[in-house]
Amino acid sequence: MVDTASFKGRDIISMRDFSREEIDFILDRATDMIPLVEKGSDLLRGKILAALFFEPSTRTRLSFESAMCRLGGSVIGFAEPKVSSVVKGETLSDTIKVVESYSDVIAMRHPSEDAARIAADVASIPIINGGSGPWEHPTQALLDLHAIRTTKGNIDGLTIALVGDLLYGRTVHSLAIALRNYDVKVYFVSPKQLKMRDDVIKDVAGRLDYVETEDLRKVLPDLDILYATRVQKERFSDPADYDKVKDAYLIDSTFLKGVKRDLKVMHPLPRITEISTDVDDTAHALYFRQVKHGVFLRMALLALVLGAL
Amino acid sequence: MVDTASFKGRDIISMRDFSREEIDFILDRATDMIPLVEKGSDLLRGKILAALFFEPSTRTRLSFESAMCRLGGSVIGFAEPKVSSVVKGETLSDTIKVVESYSDVIAMRHPSEDAARIAADVASIPIINGGSGPWEHPTQALLDLHAIRTTKGNIDGLTIALVGDLLYGRTVHSLAIALRNYDVKVYFVSPKQLKMRDDVIKDVAGRLDYVETEDLRKVLPDLDILYATRVQKERFSDPADYDKVKDAYLIDSTFLKGVKRDLKVMHPLPRITEISTDVDDTAHALYFRQVKHGVFLRMALLALVLGAL
Amino acid sequence: MVDTASFKGRDIISMRDFSREEIDFILDRATDMIPLVEKGSDLLRGKILAALFFEPSTRTRLSFESAMCRLGGSVIGFAEPKVSSVVKGETLSDTIKVVESYSDVIAMRHPSEDAARIAADVASIPIINGGSGPWEHPTQALLDLHAIRTTKGNIDGLTIALVGDLLYGRTVHSLAIALRNYDVKVYFVSPKQLKMRDDVIKDVAGRLDYVETEDLRKVLPDLDILYATRVQKERFSDPADYDKVKDAYLIDSTFLKGVKRDLKVMHPLPRITEISTDVDDTAHALYFRQVKHGVFLRMALLALVLGAL
Repeated sequence: MVDTASFKGRDIISMRDFSREEIDFILDRATDMIPLVEKGSDLLRGKILAALFFEPSTRTRLSFESAMCRLGGSVIGFAEPKVSSVVKGETLSDTIKVVESYSDVIAMRHPSEDAARIAADVASIPIINGGSGPWEHPTQALLDLHAIRTTKGNIDGLTIALVGDLLYGRTVHSLAIALRNYDVKVYFVSPKQLKMRDDVIKDVAGRLDYVETEDLRKVLPDLDILYATRVQKERFSDPADYDKVKDAYLIDSTFLKGVKRDLKVMHPLPRITEISTDVDDTAHALYFRQVKHGVFLRMALLALVLGAL
Repeated sequence: MVDTASFKGRDIISMRDFSREEIDFILDRATDMIPLVEKGSDLLRGKILAALFFEPSTRTRLSFESAMCRLGGSVIGFAEPKVSSVVKGETLSDTIKVVESYSDVIAMRHPSEDAARIAADVASIPIINGGSGPWEHPTQALLDLHAIRTTKGNIDGLTIALVGDLLYGRTVHSLAIALRNYDVKVYFVSPKQLKMRDDVIKDVAGRLDYVETEDLRKVLPDLDILYATRVQKERFSDPADYDKVKDAYLIDSTFLKGVKRDLKVMHPLPRITEISTDVDDTAHALYFRQVKHGVFLRMALLALVLGAL
Repeated sequence: MVDTASFKGRDIISMRDFSREEIDFILDRATDMIPLVEKGSDLLRGKILAALFFEPSTRTRLSFESAMCRLGGSVIGFAEPKVSSVVKGETLSDTIKVVESYSDVIAMRHPSEDAARIAADVASIPIINGGSGPWEHPTQALLDLHAIRTTKGNIDGLTIALVGDLLYGRTVHSLAIALRNYDVKVYFVSPKQLKMRDDVIKDVAGRLDYVETEDLRKVLPDLDILYATRVQKERFSDPADYDKVKDAYLIDSTFLKGVKRDLKVMHPLPRITEISTDVDDTAHALYFRQVKHGVFLRMALLALVLGAL
């Protein structure tokens, strides 16, 4: 049985570590948090979140900080490694062993794939992975699920396209892994060079009804959720390849003609050119509302791992 | 009639947007805040200020943060754009639409003149302009008025010189606009190359009794308030021009011989060489005490726009 | 008599300023703080710490922030001078005179030796020196004493080696000065080029039983405390000299064969290669637990100088 005891002291490193029951339980707790944003709460009063961002981030860092403040807790940390002891050559393990003396929970982003796992191994307090290189970004996947469930009423039964850079996009890795727990149809839509990473394919195989394709236009009429991500120019050796891709996945209001009426377009943000601003005011745009779910979800996670629920 | 309802949810973008009654109301509320600094307050408990500094700042940022903390609120944000998603190419509008999901009010500084207005247009929460390029710095003008009123008892009837870079100095732009609501005599004292910016002249014309001059020494004996600002070397194509100006407006205790006994010297700070340190311990120096008024004033503004008064 | 009144409003600049009675009193208060970390406290509710780090730091800054948050207070400040008005050419005195209007106590780190003293001279609120160039780091010395006393039960009677860069290491300067108040035997162990700085020698002479040596191995069997510090390559004109030193003071589990059973190894951290990770899990390693004492100690100092005890 999943209950709050399942989460107290627990690390949140990878979507691979969570069952459907656990995910649903977390999403339920996130929904419980919604009224607290307005009302305020002292649930985590006296608790300290250390936000360690070895890679810059606006939204994930501020989202964690907002979640902690909404529950009455405090935040310490750094927004870039340059101001930290990392520049003096300290190992990640040592940094974590030090920072755990200052805080009750650590949320971290790091360019290295295994950083969050390493941190969890040495820390005696919970570690929450706020993005580990191209590997995973589990709290983003959970907030995405919460946004989908809140908007659609249900995750089961949906047809979902994950679009863009599926090779390096940590967000879509975590989301794909999470979705294997649900009865959904998923399209992995990407240019050939940026197909879904092998270990994710391996981990969803047999558990997720998925199709890999390059052709977004073709699958578009089927979709309930179009989850767009940024394709970075630097990923292509030939700039011409990039331009082709960029245009193929550019979502604007013209492109969205003929889609299901309640198709929702999502994006982990920041978006650059993937979604035209002329989509912003349509009923399809979920990407800005999606952001709010990050606060609800992280409030729930912080409260759960700190044993406050 | 002006009351607290006039301010709930309101953006603070330009002094052009405020009537005398509104300004006086804000200054009264700032005075109400003074005892709370010592006593502490929970007026904004559970509320979050996002301080977004796209340009570095010590005093404005820390002043806002101090004001929020003094009222029991929390602060999130960034002190420089480099750690934010701006480096990934996100538009200001998108950043604001994201950050408003994390916070209840945004204070921002930005190098672009229209940034604060753009932010206010897209945001559903109040935006406070903490400096928008060379255009305006309304909270500085309000704190300056509060410092003047507290020290002098009244703003009406004073003779005030705004000195230095009147072309690029956002502080003096906002202050000049604000002063048009009062019965004051104002000297705009600047080198020819840095005369008061045209749109300010246009907006005060007919409403403010002002004189433009290069000669500070000549108007000095008349002054109740000498408001000095920094003249930056980079503004001059000929370094010799800069040196001339720098010396003409260098305020030291010798220069202040023969001024009114209760002349107060103000400065938005940081000062570099404009005011000699030998003025610091004279009764003329208001510039360090001026800083405290920033906290009172911003406490009042935060409480007002958040509907907490 | 030493009591809380001895500390209210006081600056913490140098270990030279404190008597044994005062140090013991501070250490006692740090011990009082231990249960508050778990329980939480509102002792400094409504109070603001300004953390001004003109030099980057992870542990000292986060330790001060954690201490302030644990007591219910708030923190403002900057983690590097680049985001501050320092880049505009403001003097330290001016920065302090401004920031004291925003806060109740200032903790600062600065590359200059006399910065903390200068700040204390101009400030009307307490200044706590969080590291002043190579000169002193008094809060580190106090936390080190607290870690030693807590672990050993007593400071008197111990044999202690301060090892590494004794010329530029501010930590060992403060610690040596502090130890002159106790009945201890101290070895100053360093390469010839990095012998204990003259003014420290002068200040401990006649009050501290010390021996200067290059040979750590020889004194090792006598030690109760081995306090290691980092030796920076940049200090040596000849890289070969550095390599020799680095190897001579490299502490690993083999090196520790034959030491006293309850020898404790300490380090102000970050460590780079001075202590091998194979020491981490031995009973000798005190360096990670040492970190926690920084929070207790700084809680006590903040509460004391703010008159809250």
